Amino acid sequence: MPYVKIELLKGRTREQKAAVADAVTKALVTLAASRAEDVHVVFTDVEKSDWAIAGRLVDQGKSP
Amino acid sequence: MPYVKIELLKGRTREQKAAVADAVTKALVTLAASRAEDVHVVFTDVEKSDWAIAGRLVDQGKSP
Amino acid sequence: MPYVKIELLKGRTREQKAAVADAVTKALVTLAASRAEDVHVVFTDVEKSDWAIAGRLVDQGKSP
Amino acid sequence: MPYVKIELLKGRTREQKAAVADAVTKALVTLAASRAEDVHVVFTDVEKSDWAIAGRLVDQGKSP
Amino acid sequence: MPYVKIELLKGRTREQKAAVADAVTKALVTLAASRAEDVHVVFTDVEKSDWAIAGRLVDQGKSP
Amino acid sequence: MPYVKIELLKGRTREQKAAVADAVTKALVTLAASRAEDVHVVFTDVEKSDWAIAGRLVDQGKSP
Repeated sequence: MPYVKIELLKGRTREQKAAVADAVTKALVTLAASRAEDVHVVFTDVEKSDWAIAGRLVDQGKSP
Repeated sequence: MPYVKIELLKGRTREQKAAVADAVTKALVTLAASRAEDVHVVFTDVEKSDWAIAGRLVDQGKSP
Repeated sequence: MPYVKIELLKGRTREQKAAVADAVTKALVTLAASRAEDVHVVFTDVEKSDWAIAGRLVDQGKSP
Repeated sequence: MPYVKIELLKGRTREQKAAVADAVTKALVTLAASRAEDVHVVFTDVEKSDWAIAGRLVDQGKSP
Repeated sequence: MPYVKIELLKGRTREQKAAVADAVTKALVTLAASRAEDVHVVFTDVEKSDWAIAGRLVDQGKSP
Repeated sequence: MPYVKIELLKGRTREQKAAVADAVTKALVTLAASRAEDVHVVFTDVEKSDWAIAGRLVDQGKSP
């Protein structure tokens, strides 16, 4: 603990995730008194066809 | 916000998900005073070998 | 299964949640071939001080 | 309900998951008064490149 | 890791949760090669008015 | 999207959460090409009696 889950559209590289995990962990350590070794960050890639905003899948584009 | 996560057994088509996302969004707008553009719906497909009910994976079938 | 989780800002009434749960379940039955008795809908109320958009808690208002 | 989600590093076999699901279900039935048929257990496999501890992805190894 | 989330209807005692956490952890150690100190179990109590099955909140009872 | 969920032991102040949300959002914008207005961060406070590590609730302390 803390446990951080990050859901984002597929496409980020391993390097981007590593950098984000590092920054998120430092934020929790510096700003919220967490110990680094207790911080877990888990990424979940989501396909555009699995994420809808305003009732439309992201890969459908905006409504006309 | 609202953020809606739907976990379901793998196999639904993109069209089925699009229709469900649309209906869920309309329900939140009509019945719970949400704004459509704020509603996120995320689908997670789950394999039958990753979902257990009553202690048995769905692909194991019911106990005899 | 399916399992549906709805996170939304605190404030909806029990009646609103009941109506949304009913509509979401019907959507899954009608549009995604689920059986009604298999559909679980779980609501999670979130305080405005626990939800941030664009880096600001909802109760902080928009950036100037 | 109860609904149990287990996130773990990829690599467990179907047999291991079946055994864990069975044990978790029995624990809830025996120790927490749940009915077996109400217990859902869902597994999510996570890649080592998607899980960070102490700010480092698991496949990066420990910091020097 | 593993990270286990257990959502269940409110009402279980602290002792019941402690016993379940212990049993779930042992199951993962014995059956899935996890190390005990890596296993996190988090409980989330859900109100009956926040959980719907078959489109009805649990505290509404079954449909007539 | 991205949607970030942060589960942590109860006790952080509103100011700490605001600072963390800001830092996490900036990390995603700077390091992962997200747009700030798309980033949602949701905090979930967990009681010590609802979080177990190594099979023991956090408020039970370590095993002797």
